[in-house]
This record gives sequence, C-alpha cells and structure tokens, in this order.
Amino acid sequence: MPQRVSYFGPAGTFTEAAALKHDPQAQLLPYPSIAAAAEAVSAGQADEAVVPIENSLEGSVNDTLDLLIHHTSLLIHRELVIPIEHCLLVPPGARESDIRAIYSHPQALGQCRGYLARRFPNAAIVPAMSTAAAAERLAREPDGAAAIATMRAAELYGMQVLDRGIQDNPSNVTRFVVLAHQDSPPTGKDKTSLCFTFGDDRPGLLHAALGEFALRHINLAKVESRPTRQSLGQYIFLLDLAGHRQDPLVSEALLALQRHVSLLKIFGSYPRYEA
Amino acid sequence: MPQRVSYFGPAGTFTEAAALKHDPQAQLLPYPSIAAAAEAVSAGQADEAVVPIENSLEGSVNDTLDLLIHHTSLLIHRELVIPIEHCLLVPPGARESDIRAIYSHPQALGQCRGYLARRFPNAAIVPAMSTAAAAERLAREPDGAAAIATMRAAELYGMQVLDRGIQDNPSNVTRFVVLAHQDSPPTGKDKTSLCFTFGDDRPGLLHAALGEFALRHINLAKVESRPTRQSLGQYIFLLDLAGHRQDPLVSEALLALQRHVSLLKIFGSYPRYEA
Repeated sequence: MPQRVSYFGPAGTFTEAAALKHDPQAQLLPYPSIAAAAEAVSAGQADEAVVPIENSLEGSVNDTLDLLIHHTSLLIHRELVIPIEHCLLVPPGARESDIRAIYSHPQALGQCRGYLARRFPNAAIVPAMSTAAAAERLAREPDGAAAIATMRAAELYGMQVLDRGIQDNPSNVTRFVVLAHQDSPPTGKDKTSLCFTFGDDRPGLLHAALGEFALRHINLAKVESRPTRQSLGQYIFLLDLAGHRQDPLVSEALLALQRHVSLLKIFGSYPRYEA
Repeated sequence: MPQRVSYFGPAGTFTEAAALKHDPQAQLLPYPSIAAAAEAVSAGQADEAVVPIENSLEGSVNDTLDLLIHHTSLLIHRELVIPIEHCLLVPPGARESDIRAIYSHPQALGQCRGYLARRFPNAAIVPAMSTAAAAERLAREPDGAAAIATMRAAELYGMQVLDRGIQDNPSNVTRFVVLAHQDSPPTGKDKTSLCFTFGDDRPGLLHAALGEFALRHINLAKVESRPTRQSLGQYIFLLDLAGHRQDPLVSEALLALQRHVSLLKIFGSYPRYEA
C-alpha cells in the first residue's frame, strides 16, 4: 500500500513539489493549512506530512515553527530543500504583448517585483490567495491575463509557460520538513532541531545554555528567537545543531541543557539534506 | 516647519498609525515599500522613516531586517509598539446579513480565520495587496462586500465599522522603528540593535561572541538568525541588548565583540518603548 503523505496544498504549489520529491509513489493529500496537514497525521488520516519551514529570502515559516513549538507532538523525520522557480503562465497560444493583468500571491509578486517592473510596467497586479489559486483563476479568466506560479501548476491547469526563473534573486530555495510519529535513526550526518525558553530574564542565560554545546564542540547550524505569542519581549529560542540526539555528546549536552531552561522540546533528529 | 516623515503606506495602514503616534504634527509621506520609505530619508525627501520591524504573532518583518543589514546607513532613532486591531468594514448602512464577499490582505485574512469561519462561513474570501487596498476596493465595489482593515481606513474611505478586534489572537502588537540619520542620546533606559556574522563556521563561535555580553551582565532582549541570502545554512545574527552603545560596559562589549566576528553593524541605540 502506498504511503499517505499530507501536505499544505493545493496541488501545484512548491510544497506539493517537495512531497513528490520526498515520495514519488505516495498518495498525496492536500490540506488547506500547515496545521491541518500535521493534524491529518496525528489523526491517522496520513502517515507523514510535508510542510515548509524556511525560505532563503523570506526566513522562517512562522506557522510551522508555531506548530512545532505549541501544537504538535509529531517529530521531524526528514528535511528537503527545493529551489523556488517562479514561472510566468499564460493561456495556450497567448503572447507577451497580450498581457494586461498578472495574478499571484503577494509574496510571489514581491519576489518578482523587478522583473514585472521591467517587462510589464503597465500590467495590473492582481493578488491571489496562493500561486496555485492564481493559475486556477487564469484558467477561468484567461483573457489578457497571466499568472506567476509553478511549472507544475501550468501542467495541472493546462497553461503555457512563457518564462521561467523570473524571481529577482536567483538563489531562492525553501527548506521543507517531513513530520511523522518518529524521527530518524542516526546516519552519522544528522541534524537535531529543538526549542527552549527560560523562566526568567537575567543576563547570560542564553550564553550559559549555548555553552553546553560549545563545551562539547557541537556546531549550531541555526539560532532563532520567536516571540512567545503572549507578549513582545518574551522569547522562545530555536536551535538546529549538528549531530543526532542519540550521539553520546549531543545526548549529554541535551541533558545538561535541561538544567538551564524552563522548557525544552526536541523536534527530532534527521539526516542533514545534501544537494 | 513640520517634520517630514516617510512611511510604508498607503494611508490607512497600521504603519500610518505608528507614524501619526510618532509625530502627530508631521507631514506624512506614504511610500510603496519599506525600502522606498527609507530611501526617501537617505535622499533628503524626508527627515525620518517609520517602518514595521516585528509582530508578536508573525515574527520579524524580513524586508526591514534586510534593509538594516544590507541596504541602508540610516540608524534606529526610536521604537514604538502599536496594537493591531482588525476591523470589519462595510459600506454605510449595510448589515451583516448582506455580506457575501470579504476583501483583505492574505495575512489579515489568516489572522481573522476563526472569526470568518464562525460568522461568515459562506462568504467569498477575496485577497487584496494590503488592508488599505481592501478598504479602497470596498469603496469602489461595495455591493454585498466587506473588508478587513483599520479604523483609520474606515475613516479615509467613508466606510462603517461593523465589528472591531476581530483577530483570533487578542494580543497582537507590532513594533515599529523610526529610521533617521542619527540614533538617540542615552536616557538610562535604552536598547541597542546590531547584527554580526562570522567568517567561518566552527563550534562555539556564537557562544564566545555572546560571552562578551554575559561577562558584563548585559541582558539580551532578542537574538535572531537570518539566512545571508547567499545560501541556506549561512547566517547573520541580530541582537537587541539592554543599554546604550555609549554606556561604558556596552561600549566595551561592542569593542570586544569586534574580535569575534567578521562583520559588525550597529543599527543604533534608542529609548526602550514603555507602554
């Protein structure tokens, strides 16, 4: 029986591309939000969930961080990195000179701002809820219109790709994580993700906590703070570190970390993505 | 002569509310992006710029962080915190039962998702480029429609406020910064913001850097890492710390920090916001 993989849909988004890369044989199940895709796994409707966690231009995907921090006991089983290539879609047979309106999500429109200003200074910019929704609208309202969306959306909605790689910054990649009931066994090239917070707010707390890793020569791949949602000025810290939580030194550091923090949640250990 | 204050517009957004709070007498100049609002100050068209930097639910405003890191020599002169209260706007005289479509920015729609699902399960959700653009569209296309926008947008576009505080999480505040050619003199209750990066990637680098503050009992209000835009996995660290860069201990710590990092940029020292 093929695996059931839920993802933050609809079909035609970069998250679907990540889900396909994760498991080309899987039965893919789109959900309307990151939280709903994860909940499908918790509720047994899917085996694994694929959600975006970080974009090289935009930074972290806050809905996914909040899910991991507050709302799920699922673990990170794998990470994947997908290049984000925005395409200009038009109805079959349409030409560049026909384009008077361009549909897309405000974030995609922002990432292609320079291209749009150079090539389509007079086109109306029309916001959509997602790049896939933009392609779908283009299929319904094709006259004089184009959409910024994925290659896959062009395929799904029978649209033609007039131009590709139109984002202003060519090095635009997104990291996705696969969430499951289990994380992954050690491979020797692993990462561990976790979050912690402090009960009070004295100078040196973060420094002392990070010292447990420095002491054991464990490299930190990422450090981030997120507001606690209660108020600005209270933070939860998120770390990615090199190594598996079962590696002796990492395991020792995590035990030692417990003594510094008021809350520690380990999101899982999983193989480091290699292109 | 009144000060000229540029802001990330249009009129009717929360950034305009922050600019009005910063200087009620100022001549307010809306610009179409965060970068353009800052550039207006660099180019002498405005004296100060007001831009959002952090939201309690969404986290940092990446465009502002990238501006401070990479694209401006302006300094942070002041911070302000504004509660984000989303309102449901309708054309004058319209009733709740008339509403079949709701216009807003995808982020505002997301922050009001629970409210919309409870009260308007059958309304069409129509994305807009900003909450102000949604109010403006409502003024143009009022039939059976509503918009999620600010109180101020209701005023500007002559719309009626049917409901207020409709966001799902009531503790939604945004921090804004005022950018200028100078930061602020010491007041005794200050913050300093800065960023740094390392030339290589060895265990313990961040720990050693933060040690310069721990050693001097300087509290860190915020630590954040941002991808460098070159690739995932390379990070720039952003700190907010308690104290002014002219305070003797802070000044000493910043000098010592120089020895640990390959790049250090101080965004400025300014009075800590007090509600």
